[in-house]
Amino acid sequence: MTSLARTEPAAHDASNLSPSVLARHACRTGMASSTAGVADGFVQGNLAIMPEKLASAFHRFCQLNPKPCPIIGMSDVGDPRIPALGIDLDIRTDLPRYRVWRDGEVVEEPTDIMAHWRDDLVAFVIGCSFSFEEALRADGLPIRHIERNVRVPMYRTNIACQPSGPFAGPMVVSMRPFKPADAIRAVQITSRFPAVHGAPVHLGHPSSIGIADIARPDYGDPVPVADDEIPVFWACGVTPQSVIAAAKLPFAITHAPGLMLVTDLLNKQLAVL
Amino acid sequence: MTSLARTEPAAHDASNLSPSVLARHACRTGMASSTAGVADGFVQGNLAIMPEKLASAFHRFCQLNPKPCPIIGMSDVGDPRIPALGIDLDIRTDLPRYRVWRDGEVVEEPTDIMAHWRDDLVAFVIGCSFSFEEALRADGLPIRHIERNVRVPMYRTNIACQPSGPFAGPMVVSMRPFKPADAIRAVQITSRFPAVHGAPVHLGHPSSIGIADIARPDYGDPVPVADDEIPVFWACGVTPQSVIAAAKLPFAITHAPGLMLVTDLLNKQLAVL
Repeated sequence: MTSLARTEPAAHDASNLSPSVLARHACRTGMASSTAGVADGFVQGNLAIMPEKLASAFHRFCQLNPKPCPIIGMSDVGDPRIPALGIDLDIRTDLPRYRVWRDGEVVEEPTDIMAHWRDDLVAFVIGCSFSFEEALRADGLPIRHIERNVRVPMYRTNIACQPSGPFAGPMVVSMRPFKPADAIRAVQITSRFPAVHGAPVHLGHPSSIGIADIARPDYGDPVPVADDEIPVFWACGVTPQSVIAAAKLPFAITHAPGLMLVTDLLNKQLAVL
Repeated sequence: MTSLARTEPAAHDASNLSPSVLARHACRTGMASSTAGVADGFVQGNLAIMPEKLASAFHRFCQLNPKPCPIIGMSDVGDPRIPALGIDLDIRTDLPRYRVWRDGEVVEEPTDIMAHWRDDLVAFVIGCSFSFEEALRADGLPIRHIERNVRVPMYRTNIACQPSGPFAGPMVVSMRPFKPADAIRAVQITSRFPAVHGAPVHLGHPSSIGIADIARPDYGDPVPVADDEIPVFWACGVTPQSVIAAAKLPFAITHAPGLMLVTDLLNKQLAVL
Protein backbone atom coordinates (compact mmCIF):
# COMPACT_ATOMS: atom_id res chain seq x y z
CA MET A 1 0.00 0.00 0.00
CA THR A 2 2.76 2.42 0.97
CA SER A 3 4.91 1.66 -2.10
CA LEU A 4 1.89 2.01 -4.36
CA ALA A 5 1.10 5.39 -2.83
CA ARG A 6 4.69 6.46 -3.37
CA THR A 7 4.79 5.72 -7.07
CA GLU A 8 1.22 6.41 -8.00
CA PRO A 9 -0.59 8.77 -5.65
CA ALA A 10 -4.29 7.92 -5.56
CA ALA A 11 -7.10 10.43 -5.42
CA HIS A 12 -7.86 9.04 -1.95
CA ASP A 13 -4.55 8.03 -0.43
CA ALA A 14 -5.30 4.94 1.66
CA SER A 15 -1.83 4.63 3.15
CA ASN A 16 -2.69 6.62 6.25
CA LEU A 17 -6.04 5.01 6.90
CA SER A 18 -6.36 2.59 9.76
CA PRO A 19 -7.00 -1.10 9.03
CA SER A 20 -10.50 -0.65 10.49
CA VAL A 21 -11.39 2.12 8.04
CA LEU A 22 -9.97 0.05 5.18
CA ALA A 23 -12.07 -2.93 6.30
CA ARG A 24 -15.25 -0.84 6.24
CA HIS A 25 -14.31 0.59 2.84
CA ALA A 26 -13.81 -2.97 1.58
CA CYS A 27 -17.30 -3.88 2.81
CA ARG A 28 -18.77 -0.91 0.94
CA THR A 29 -17.13 -2.06 -2.26
CA GLY A 30 -18.01 -5.72 -2.20
CA MET A 31 -16.23 -7.60 0.58
CA ALA A 32 -18.74 -10.19 1.83
CA SER A 33 -16.62 -12.64 3.84
CA SER A 34 -15.91 -13.34 7.52
CA THR A 35 -14.26 -10.57 9.51
CA ALA A 36 -12.33 -13.05 11.67
CA GLY A 37 -8.69 -11.93 11.60
CA VAL A 38 -9.55 -8.67 9.80
CA ALA A 39 -8.05 -5.44 11.22
CA ASP A 40 -6.25 -7.13 14.10
CA GLY A 41 -6.47 -5.16 17.32
CA PHE A 42 -9.71 -3.36 16.45
CA VAL A 43 -13.03 -4.00 18.17
CA GLN A 44 -15.67 -5.83 16.13
CA GLY A 45 -19.33 -5.77 17.01
CA ASN A 46 -22.61 -7.59 16.64
CA LEU A 47 -25.37 -5.54 14.99
CA ALA A 48 -29.09 -5.26 15.80
CA ILE A 49 -31.35 -2.77 14.02
CA MET A 50 -35.05 -2.31 14.69
CA PRO A 51 -37.81 0.31 14.57
CA GLU A 52 -37.84 2.98 17.28
CA LYS A 53 -41.05 1.65 18.81
CA LEU A 54 -39.28 -1.62 19.69
CA ALA A 55 -35.85 -0.15 20.30
CA SER A 56 -36.52 1.13 23.80
CA ALA A 57 -37.59 -2.31 25.01
CA PHE A 58 -34.53 -3.82 23.35
CA HIS A 59 -32.28 -1.17 24.87
CA ARG A 60 -33.70 -2.03 28.28
CA PHE A 61 -33.16 -5.74 27.55
CA CYS A 62 -29.48 -5.02 26.94
CA GLN A 63 -29.31 -2.92 30.10
CA LEU A 64 -30.77 -5.79 32.12
CA ASN A 65 -28.48 -8.39 30.53
CA PRO A 66 -25.11 -6.70 30.16
CA LYS A 67 -23.06 -9.89 30.01
CA PRO A 68 -24.60 -11.27 26.79
CA CYS A 69 -25.58 -7.81 25.44
CA PRO A 70 -22.88 -5.22 26.20
CA ILE A 71 -23.71 -2.17 24.06
CA ILE A 72 -20.59 -0.53 22.65
CA GLY A 73 -22.42 1.94 20.41
CA MET A 74 -25.85 2.95 19.13
CA SER A 75 -27.26 5.30 16.53
CA ASP A 76 -29.73 8.12 16.84
CA VAL A 77 -33.19 7.38 15.41
CA GLY A 78 -33.02 7.26 11.61
CA ASP A 79 -29.34 8.16 11.58
CA PRO A 80 -27.10 5.55 9.91
CA ARG A 81 -23.94 6.99 11.49
CA ILE A 82 -22.29 6.01 14.79
CA PRO A 83 -19.38 8.46 14.99
CA ALA A 84 -18.12 7.09 18.32
CA LEU A 85 -17.23 3.85 16.51
CA GLY A 86 -15.86 5.45 13.34
CA ILE A 87 -16.17 9.00 12.00
CA ASP A 88 -17.08 7.86 8.49
CA LEU A 89 -19.05 4.79 9.58
CA ASP A 90 -22.30 4.10 7.71
CA ILE A 91 -24.17 1.24 9.33
CA ARG A 92 -26.11 0.60 6.08
CA THR A 93 -23.05 -0.38 4.03
CA ASP A 94 -20.10 -1.09 6.29
CA LEU A 95 -20.72 -4.72 7.23
CA PRO A 96 -19.91 -7.57 4.85
CA ARG A 97 -23.38 -9.05 4.99
CA TYR A 98 -26.69 -8.50 6.81
CA ARG A 99 -29.71 -10.53 7.73
CA VAL A 100 -33.16 -9.00 7.19
CA TRP A 101 -35.76 -10.51 9.55
CA ARG A 102 -39.54 -10.47 9.13
CA ASP A 103 -41.77 -12.13 11.72
CA GLY A 104 -38.87 -14.08 13.16
CA GLU A 105 -37.58 -15.42 9.84
CA VAL A 106 -34.54 -14.41 7.80
CA VAL A 107 -35.97 -13.26 4.48
CA GLU A 108 -32.87 -11.86 2.84
CA GLU A 109 -29.07 -11.71 3.34
CA PRO A 110 -27.97 -8.60 1.43
CA THR A 111 -24.50 -7.02 1.41
CA ASP A 112 -25.96 -3.61 2.17
CA ILE A 113 -29.28 -2.38 3.57
CA MET A 114 -29.70 0.85 1.65
CA ALA A 115 -33.05 -0.40 0.28
CA HIS A 116 -34.26 -1.34 3.80
CA TRP A 117 -33.22 1.77 5.70
CA ARG A 118 -36.00 3.84 7.25
CA ASP A 119 -35.99 7.01 9.27
CA ASP A 120 -37.45 5.22 12.30
CA LEU A 121 -34.64 2.68 12.65
CA VAL A 122 -32.20 2.46 15.56
CA ALA A 123 -28.92 0.54 15.33
CA PHE A 124 -27.26 -1.17 18.30
CA VAL A 125 -23.67 -2.44 18.22
CA ILE A 126 -22.94 -5.09 20.82
CA GLY A 127 -19.50 -6.29 21.95
CA CYS A 128 -18.08 -9.54 20.61
CA SER A 129 -15.74 -12.21 21.93
CA PHE A 130 -13.11 -11.49 19.26
CA SER A 131 -11.91 -8.69 21.55
CA PHE A 132 -11.26 -10.83 24.61
CA GLU A 133 -9.87 -13.65 22.50
CA GLU A 134 -7.14 -11.26 21.38
CA ALA A 135 -6.28 -10.63 25.04
CA LEU A 136 -6.27 -14.37 25.81
CA ARG A 137 -3.98 -15.11 22.86
CA ALA A 138 -1.69 -12.21 23.74
CA ASP A 139 -1.25 -13.92 27.11
CA GLY A 140 -0.28 -17.17 25.41
CA LEU A 141 -3.50 -19.09 26.07
CA PRO A 142 -4.38 -21.54 23.29
CA ILE A 143 -7.91 -21.16 21.89
CA ARG A 144 -9.13 -24.47 20.59
CA HIS A 145 -11.55 -23.35 17.87
CA ILE A 146 -8.98 -20.90 16.47
CA GLU A 147 -6.31 -23.62 16.45
CA ARG A 148 -8.73 -25.83 14.53
CA ASN A 149 -9.97 -23.04 12.28
CA VAL A 150 -13.64 -23.64 13.10
CA ARG A 151 -16.35 -21.45 14.63
CA VAL A 152 -16.58 -21.24 18.41
CA PRO A 153 -19.14 -23.73 19.83
CA MET A 154 -22.21 -21.99 21.28
CA TYR A 155 -25.05 -23.37 23.40
CA ARG A 156 -28.49 -22.30 24.54
CA THR A 157 -28.54 -22.54 28.33
CA ASN A 158 -31.20 -22.76 31.04
CA ILE A 159 -30.08 -19.33 32.31
CA ALA A 160 -33.06 -17.05 31.62
CA CYS A 161 -32.28 -13.52 30.50
CA GLN A 162 -34.16 -10.76 32.29
CA PRO A 163 -37.09 -10.06 29.92
CA SER A 164 -38.10 -6.67 28.54
CA GLY A 165 -41.20 -6.23 26.38
CA PRO A 166 -41.15 -8.86 23.62
CA PHE A 167 -37.49 -9.68 24.30
CA ALA A 168 -37.00 -12.81 26.41
CA GLY A 169 -35.27 -16.11 26.25
CA PRO A 170 -32.26 -18.08 27.41
CA MET A 171 -28.70 -16.83 27.48
CA VAL A 172 -26.52 -18.26 24.74
CA VAL A 173 -22.94 -19.02 25.77
CA SER A 174 -19.73 -19.72 23.90
CA MET A 175 -17.32 -22.38 25.17
CA ARG A 176 -13.54 -22.59 25.19
CA PRO A 177 -11.77 -25.51 26.91
CA PHE A 178 -8.68 -24.81 29.00
CA LYS A 179 -6.29 -26.57 31.32
CA PRO A 180 -7.31 -25.54 34.88
CA ALA A 181 -4.45 -23.06 35.46
CA ASP A 182 -5.23 -21.45 32.09
CA ALA A 183 -8.94 -21.33 32.98
CA ILE A 184 -8.04 -19.33 36.10
CA ARG A 185 -5.88 -16.99 33.99
CA ALA A 186 -8.73 -16.66 31.47
CA VAL A 187 -11.08 -15.53 34.26
CA GLN A 188 -8.56 -12.87 35.27
CA ILE A 189 -7.95 -11.62 31.74
CA THR A 190 -11.58 -11.47 30.61
CA SER A 191 -12.64 -9.79 33.88
CA ARG A 192 -10.78 -6.74 32.55
CA PHE A 193 -13.15 -6.55 29.55
CA PRO A 194 -16.74 -6.08 30.78
CA ALA A 195 -17.62 -4.31 27.51
CA VAL A 196 -17.05 -7.53 25.59
CA HIS A 197 -18.82 -10.10 27.80
CA GLY A 198 -16.34 -9.91 30.69
CA ALA A 199 -15.66 -12.86 33.00
CA PRO A 200 -17.09 -16.30 32.24
CA VAL A 201 -20.58 -17.11 33.50
CA HIS A 202 -19.85 -20.77 34.15
CA LEU A 203 -17.20 -23.44 34.11
CA GLY A 204 -16.91 -27.14 34.62
CA HIS A 205 -20.49 -28.45 34.84
CA PRO A 206 -22.29 -28.00 31.49
CA SER A 207 -25.37 -29.86 32.74
CA SER A 208 -25.82 -27.29 35.54
CA ILE A 209 -26.64 -24.66 32.90
CA GLY A 210 -28.77 -26.96 30.76
CA ILE A 211 -26.21 -28.18 28.26
CA ALA A 212 -26.97 -31.86 27.71
CA ASP A 213 -24.16 -32.70 25.30
CA ILE A 214 -21.03 -30.58 25.00
CA ALA A 215 -20.27 -32.30 21.68
CA ARG A 216 -23.47 -30.92 20.12
CA PRO A 217 -23.45 -27.12 20.18
CA ASP A 218 -26.60 -25.25 19.13
CA TYR A 219 -24.53 -22.85 17.01
CA GLY A 220 -21.00 -23.01 15.62
CA ASP A 221 -18.84 -26.11 15.56
CA PRO A 222 -17.97 -28.70 18.22
CA VAL A 223 -14.45 -28.81 19.64
CA PRO A 224 -12.98 -31.55 21.85
CA VAL A 225 -12.55 -31.08 25.61
CA ALA A 226 -9.70 -33.23 26.97
CA ASP A 227 -10.03 -35.16 30.23
CA ASP A 228 -7.67 -32.77 32.02
CA GLU A 229 -9.42 -29.65 30.72
CA ILE A 230 -12.33 -27.54 31.96
CA PRO A 231 -14.99 -26.19 29.60
CA VAL A 232 -15.29 -22.44 30.29
CA PHE A 233 -18.46 -20.61 29.22
CA TRP A 234 -18.87 -16.94 28.35
CA ALA A 235 -22.07 -15.03 27.70
CA CYS A 236 -22.38 -14.71 23.93
CA GLY A 237 -23.44 -11.96 21.54
CA VAL A 238 -25.60 -14.48 19.69
CA THR A 239 -28.05 -14.07 22.59
CA PRO A 240 -29.62 -10.86 21.23
CA GLN A 241 -29.99 -12.39 17.77
CA SER A 242 -31.63 -15.47 19.25
CA VAL A 243 -33.96 -13.28 21.33
CA ILE A 244 -34.85 -11.12 18.32
CA ALA A 245 -35.72 -14.25 16.34
CA ALA A 246 -37.87 -15.59 19.18
CA ALA A 247 -39.69 -12.26 19.54
CA LYS A 248 -40.85 -12.59 15.90
CA LEU A 249 -40.51 -8.84 15.33
CA PRO A 250 -42.30 -7.65 12.20
CA PHE A 251 -39.00 -6.19 11.02
CA ALA A 252 -35.38 -6.23 12.19
CA ILE A 253 -31.90 -6.36 10.73
CA THR A 254 -28.79 -8.03 12.16
CA HIS A 255 -25.31 -8.88 10.91
CA ALA A 256 -24.79 -12.28 9.32
CA PRO A 257 -23.02 -14.61 11.81
CA GLY A 258 -19.24 -14.10 11.78
CA LEU A 259 -19.50 -11.10 9.43
CA MET A 260 -19.25 -8.29 11.94
CA LEU A 261 -18.92 -4.52 12.09
CA VAL A 262 -15.24 -3.48 12.32
CA THR A 263 -14.94 -0.35 14.49
CA ASP A 264 -12.15 2.17 15.08
CA LEU A 265 -12.01 1.30 18.79
CA LEU A 266 -8.97 -0.66 19.89
CA ASN A 267 -9.56 -3.84 21.88
CA LYS A 268 -7.02 -2.68 24.45
CA GLN A 269 -9.04 0.50 24.99
CA LEU A 270 -11.84 -1.65 26.40
CA ALA A 271 -9.73 -2.90 29.32
CA VAL A 272 -10.98 -1.42 32.58
CA LEU A 273 -7.67 -2.05 34.37
CA MET B 1 -14.46 -2.33 77.03
CA THR B 2 -15.52 1.27 76.56
CA SER B 3 -18.03 1.21 79.39
CA LEU B 4 -15.49 -0.42 81.72
CA ALA B 5 -12.99 2.32 80.87
CA ARG B 6 -15.58 4.96 81.59
CA THR B 7 -16.40 3.76 85.09
CA GLU B 8 -13.05 2.35 86.13
CA PRO B 9 -10.05 3.80 84.30
CA ALA B 10 -7.26 1.21 84.14
CA ALA B 11 -3.57 1.94 84.61
CA HIS B 12 -3.12 0.91 80.97
CA ASP B 13 -6.29 2.01 79.23
CA ALA B 14 -6.96 -0.68 76.65
CA SER B 15 -9.99 1.04 75.16
CA ASN B 16 -7.96 2.80 72.46
CA LEU B 17 -5.87 -0.21 71.49
CA SER B 18 -6.69 -2.01 68.26
CA PRO B 19 -8.00 -5.59 68.47
CA SER B 20 -4.73 -6.76 66.93
CA VAL B 21 -2.65 -5.21 69.72
CA LEU B 22 -5.02 -6.67 72.29
CA ALA B 23 -4.68 -10.10 70.68
CA ARG B 24 -0.89 -9.95 70.90
CA HIS B 25 -1.09 -8.76 74.52
CA ALA B 26 -3.36 -11.71 75.24
CA CYS B 27 -0.78 -14.08 73.75
CA ARG B 28 1.93 -12.56 75.95
CA THR B 29 -0.16 -13.19 79.02
CA GLY B 30 -1.25 -16.74 78.37
CA MET B 31 -3.68 -17.03 75.44
CA ALA B 32 -2.79 -20.31 73.72
CA SER B 33 -5.78 -21.03 71.49
CA SER B 34 -6.62 -20.72 67.78
CA THR B 35 -6.56 -17.24 66.28
CA ALA B 36 -9.41 -18.05 63.86
CA GLY B 37 -11.96 -15.25 64.27
CA VAL B 38 -9.64 -13.20 66.49
CA ALA B 39 -9.25 -9.47 65.62
CA ASP B 40 -11.54 -9.59 62.62
CA GLY B 41 -10.23 -7.55 59.71
CA PHE B 42 -6.56 -7.79 60.69
CA VAL B 43 -3.96 -9.76 58.76
CA GLN B 44 -2.71 -12.95 60.38
CA GLY B 45 0.51 -14.62 59.35
CA ASN B 46 2.41 -17.90 59.32
CA LEU B 47 5.76 -17.79 61.12
CA ALA B 48 9.13 -19.29 60.20
CA ILE B 49 12.29 -18.59 62.20
CA MET B 50 15.73 -19.97 61.46
CA PRO B 51 19.41 -19.16 61.82
CA GLU B 52 20.89 -16.52 59.51
CA LYS B 53 23.03 -19.03 57.68
CA LEU B 54 19.88 -20.80 56.42
CA ALA B 55 17.70 -17.72 56.18
CA SER B 56 19.08 -16.45 52.89
CA ALA B 57 18.30 -19.75 51.15
CA PHE B 58 14.83 -19.72 52.71
CA HIS B 59 14.29 -16.11 51.69
CA ARG B 60 15.20 -17.05 48.12
CA PHE B 61 12.83 -20.05 48.34
CA CYS B 62 9.99 -17.65 49.20
CA GLN B 63 11.04 -15.31 46.40
CA LEU B 64 10.92 -18.20 43.91
CA ASN B 65 7.57 -19.49 45.23
CA PRO B 66 5.51 -16.41 45.99
CA LYS B 67 2.11 -18.10 45.76
CA PRO B 68 2.62 -20.53 48.68
CA CYS B 69 5.18 -18.29 50.46
CA PRO B 70 4.20 -14.60 50.21
CA ILE B 71 6.39 -12.74 52.73
CA ILE B 72 4.48 -9.98 54.49
CA GLY B 73 7.22 -9.13 56.98
CA MET B 74 10.64 -10.20 58.25
CA SER B 75 12.95 -9.30 61.08
CA ASP B 76 16.50 -8.12 61.06
CA VAL B 77 19.08 -10.69 62.22
CA GLY B 78 18.73 -11.28 65.95
CA ASP B 79 16.00 -8.65 66.29
CA PRO B 80 12.70 -9.99 67.66
CA ARG B 81 10.77 -6.92 66.47
CA ILE B 82 8.98 -6.44 63.13
CA PRO B 83 7.71 -2.85 63.42
CA ALA B 84 6.05 -2.90 59.98
CA LEU B 85 3.58 -5.47 61.34
CA GLY B 86 3.09 -3.86 64.77
CA ILE B 87 5.11 -1.21 66.60
CA ASP B 88 5.18 -3.16 69.83
CA LEU B 89 5.35 -6.62 68.24
CA ASP B 90 7.75 -9.12 69.85
CA ILE B 91 7.97 -12.24 67.74
CA ARG B 92 9.18 -14.25 70.77
CA THR B 93 6.01 -13.84 72.80
CA ASP B 94 3.18 -12.62 70.59
CA LEU B 95 1.90 -15.87 69.10
CA PRO B 96 -0.33 -18.23 71.11
CA ARG B 97 1.92 -21.24 70.56
CA TYR B 98 5.12 -22.17 68.72
CA ARG B 99 6.71 -25.29 67.36
CA VAL B 100 10.41 -25.83 67.95
CA TRP B 101 11.99 -28.09 65.32
CA ARG B 102 15.24 -30.02 65.54
CA ASP B 103 16.43 -32.17 62.64
CA GLY B 104 12.99 -32.15 61.07
CA GLU B 105 11.08 -33.12 64.22
CA VAL B 106 8.91 -31.03 66.51
CA VAL B 107 10.60 -31.26 69.89
CA GLU B 108 8.57 -28.74 71.85
CA GLU B 109 5.40 -26.61 71.55
CA PRO B 110 5.96 -23.68 73.93
CA THR B 111 3.77 -20.58 74.35
CA ASP B 112 6.81 -18.32 74.03
CA ILE B 113 10.33 -18.76 72.67
CA MET B 114 12.27 -16.51 75.03
CA ALA B 115 14.44 -19.46 76.02
CA HIS B 116 15.14 -20.35 72.37
CA TRP B 117 15.89 -16.91 70.98
CA ARG B 118 19.41 -16.34 69.63
CA ASP B 119 21.07 -13.33 68.09
CA ASP B 120 21.53 -15.14 64.77
CA LEU B 121 17.83 -15.84 64.21
CA VAL B 122 15.73 -14.35 61.41
CA ALA B 123 11.91 -14.37 61.51
CA PHE B 124 9.73 -14.53 58.40
CA VAL B 125 5.99 -13.82 58.46
CA ILE B 126 4.10 -15.32 55.53
CA GLY B 127 0.59 -14.43 54.36
CA CYS B 128 -2.33 -16.66 55.31
CA SER B 129 -5.64 -17.54 53.71
CA PHE B 130 -7.66 -16.00 56.59
CA SER B 131 -7.19 -12.67 54.78
CA PHE B 132 -8.71 -13.71 51.47
CA GLU B 133 -11.43 -15.71 53.20
CA GLU B 134 -12.61 -12.46 54.78
CA ALA B 135 -12.90 -10.92 51.29
CA LEU B 136 -14.77 -13.98 49.97
CA ARG B 137 -17.21 -13.90 52.89
CA ALA B 138 -17.70 -10.15 52.54
CA ASP B 139 -18.81 -10.86 48.97
CA GLY B 140 -21.35 -13.39 50.22
CA LEU B 141 -19.53 -16.55 49.13
CA PRO B 142 -20.11 -19.49 51.48
CA ILE B 143 -16.96 -21.17 52.76
CA ARG B 144 -17.63 -24.81 53.50
CA HIS B 145 -15.08 -25.48 56.26
CA ILE B 146 -16.10 -22.32 58.10
CA GLU B 147 -19.79 -23.26 57.86
CA ARG B 148 -18.91 -26.67 59.31
CA ASN B 149 -16.50 -25.25 61.89
CA VAL B 150 -13.63 -27.50 60.84
CA ARG B 151 -10.12 -26.80 59.53
CA VAL B 152 -9.66 -26.17 55.81
CA PRO B 153 -8.66 -29.36 53.94
CA MET B 154 -5.09 -29.23 52.62
CA TYR B 155 -3.26 -31.54 50.22
CA ARG B 156 0.29 -32.20 49.10
CA THR B 157 0.36 -31.83 45.30
CA ASN B 158 2.64 -32.97 42.48
CA ILE B 159 3.46 -29.30 41.79
CA ALA B 160 7.14 -28.98 42.66
CA CYS B 161 8.24 -25.78 44.33
CA GLN B 162 11.33 -24.11 42.88
CA PRO B 163 14.11 -25.37 45.18
CA SER B 164 16.65 -23.20 47.00
CA GLY B 165 19.47 -24.72 49.04
CA PRO B 166 17.98 -27.31 51.40
CA PHE B 167 14.44 -26.07 50.78
CA ALA B 168 12.51 -28.15 48.26
CA GLY B 169 9.33 -30.12 48.00
CA PRO B 170 5.79 -30.10 46.71
CA MET B 171 3.36 -27.21 46.98
CA VAL B 172 0.65 -27.73 49.59
CA VAL B 173 -2.77 -26.40 48.60
CA SER B 174 -5.97 -25.65 50.49
CA MET B 175 -9.34 -26.50 48.95
CA ARG B 176 -12.71 -24.76 49.04
CA PRO B 177 -15.65 -26.08 47.01
CA PHE B 178 -17.87 -23.59 45.17
CA LYS B 179 -20.72 -23.53 42.71
CA PRO B 180 -19.20 -22.64 39.30
CA ALA B 181 -20.36 -19.01 39.22
CA ASP B 182 -19.02 -18.54 42.75
CA ALA B 183 -15.74 -20.18 41.73
CA ILE B 184 -15.35 -17.56 38.99
CA ARG B 185 -16.10 -14.81 41.51
CA ALA B 186 -13.59 -16.34 43.94
CA VAL B 187 -10.89 -16.16 41.25
CA GLN B 188 -11.66 -12.47 40.75
CA ILE B 189 -11.68 -11.64 44.44
CA THR B 190 -8.53 -13.52 45.43
CA SER B 191 -6.64 -12.14 42.40
CA ARG B 192 -6.75 -8.81 44.25
CA PHE B 193 -4.74 -10.29 47.14
CA PRO B 194 -1.37 -11.53 45.83
CA ALA B 195 0.18 -10.96 49.28
CA VAL B 196 -2.03 -13.69 50.73
CA HIS B 197 -1.70 -16.45 48.08
CA GLY B 198 -3.64 -14.60 45.37
CA ALA B 199 -5.63 -16.41 42.68
CA PRO B 200 -6.19 -20.17 42.88
CA VAL B 201 -3.53 -22.44 41.38
CA HIS B 202 -6.00 -25.08 40.21
CA LEU B 203 -9.64 -26.01 39.97
CA GLY B 204 -11.74 -28.90 38.90
CA HIS B 205 -9.33 -31.80 38.36
CA PRO B 206 -7.68 -32.83 41.65
CA SER B 207 -5.92 -35.78 40.00
CA SER B 208 -4.12 -33.40 37.61
CA ILE B 209 -2.18 -32.00 40.57
CA GLY B 210 -1.59 -35.34 42.24
CA ILE B 211 -4.53 -35.46 44.64
CA ALA B 212 -5.75 -39.07 44.60
CA ASP B 213 -8.69 -38.70 46.99
CA ILE B 214 -10.31 -35.36 47.74
CA ALA B 215 -11.98 -36.93 50.80
CA ARG B 216 -8.59 -37.61 52.39
CA PRO B 217 -6.67 -34.38 52.90
CA ASP B 218 -3.05 -34.55 54.08
CA TYR B 219 -3.69 -31.78 56.62
CA GLY B 220 -6.87 -30.30 58.12
CA ASP B 221 -10.31 -31.86 57.81
CA PRO B 222 -12.27 -33.24 54.85
CA VAL B 223 -15.30 -31.32 53.57
CA PRO B 224 -17.87 -32.58 51.04
CA VAL B 225 -17.86 -31.40 47.41
CA ALA B 226 -21.34 -31.57 45.86
CA ASP B 227 -21.92 -32.87 42.34
CA ASP B 228 -22.66 -29.38 41.04
CA GLU B 229 -19.62 -27.83 42.73
CA ILE B 230 -16.00 -27.32 41.68
CA PRO B 231 -13.11 -27.88 44.08
CA VAL B 232 -10.92 -24.76 43.96
CA PHE B 233 -7.32 -24.96 45.15
CA TRP B 234 -5.14 -22.19 46.53
CA ALA B 235 -1.42 -22.30 47.32
CA CYS B 236 -1.13 -22.73 51.08
CA GLY B 237 1.09 -21.30 53.79
CA VAL B 238 1.59 -24.81 55.17
CA THR B 239 4.03 -25.27 52.25
CA PRO B 240 6.95 -23.54 54.00
CA GLN B 241 6.37 -25.54 57.20
CA SER B 242 6.28 -28.76 55.18
CA VAL B 243 9.46 -27.76 53.35
CA ILE B 244 11.21 -26.83 56.61
CA ALA B 245 10.31 -30.22 58.06
CA ALA B 246 11.57 -32.03 54.95
CA ALA B 247 14.85 -30.06 55.00
CA LYS B 248 15.53 -31.47 58.49
CA LEU B 249 17.14 -28.22 59.62
CA PRO B 250 19.18 -28.56 62.82
CA PHE B 251 17.03 -25.82 64.33
CA ALA B 252 13.94 -23.84 63.32
CA ILE B 253 10.83 -22.41 64.92
CA THR B 254 7.34 -22.04 63.41
CA HIS B 255 3.88 -21.18 64.66
CA ALA B 256 1.62 -24.06 65.77
CA PRO B 257 -1.00 -24.76 63.05
CA GLY B 258 -3.98 -22.40 63.31
CA LEU B 259 -2.31 -20.34 66.06
CA MET B 260 -1.01 -17.47 63.99
CA LEU B 261 0.61 -14.09 64.43
CA VAL B 262 -2.00 -11.31 64.50
CA THR B 263 -0.59 -8.17 62.85
CA ASP B 264 -1.70 -4.53 62.74
CA LEU B 265 -2.13 -4.65 58.94
CA LEU B 266 -5.70 -4.61 57.70
CA ASN B 267 -6.74 -7.32 55.25
CA LYS B 268 -8.24 -4.67 52.99
CA GLN B 269 -4.87 -2.90 52.83
CA LEU B 270 -3.49 -5.94 51.01
CA ALA B 271 -5.83 -5.50 48.04
CA VAL B 272 -3.88 -4.40 44.97
CA LEU B 273 -6.99 -2.99 43.25
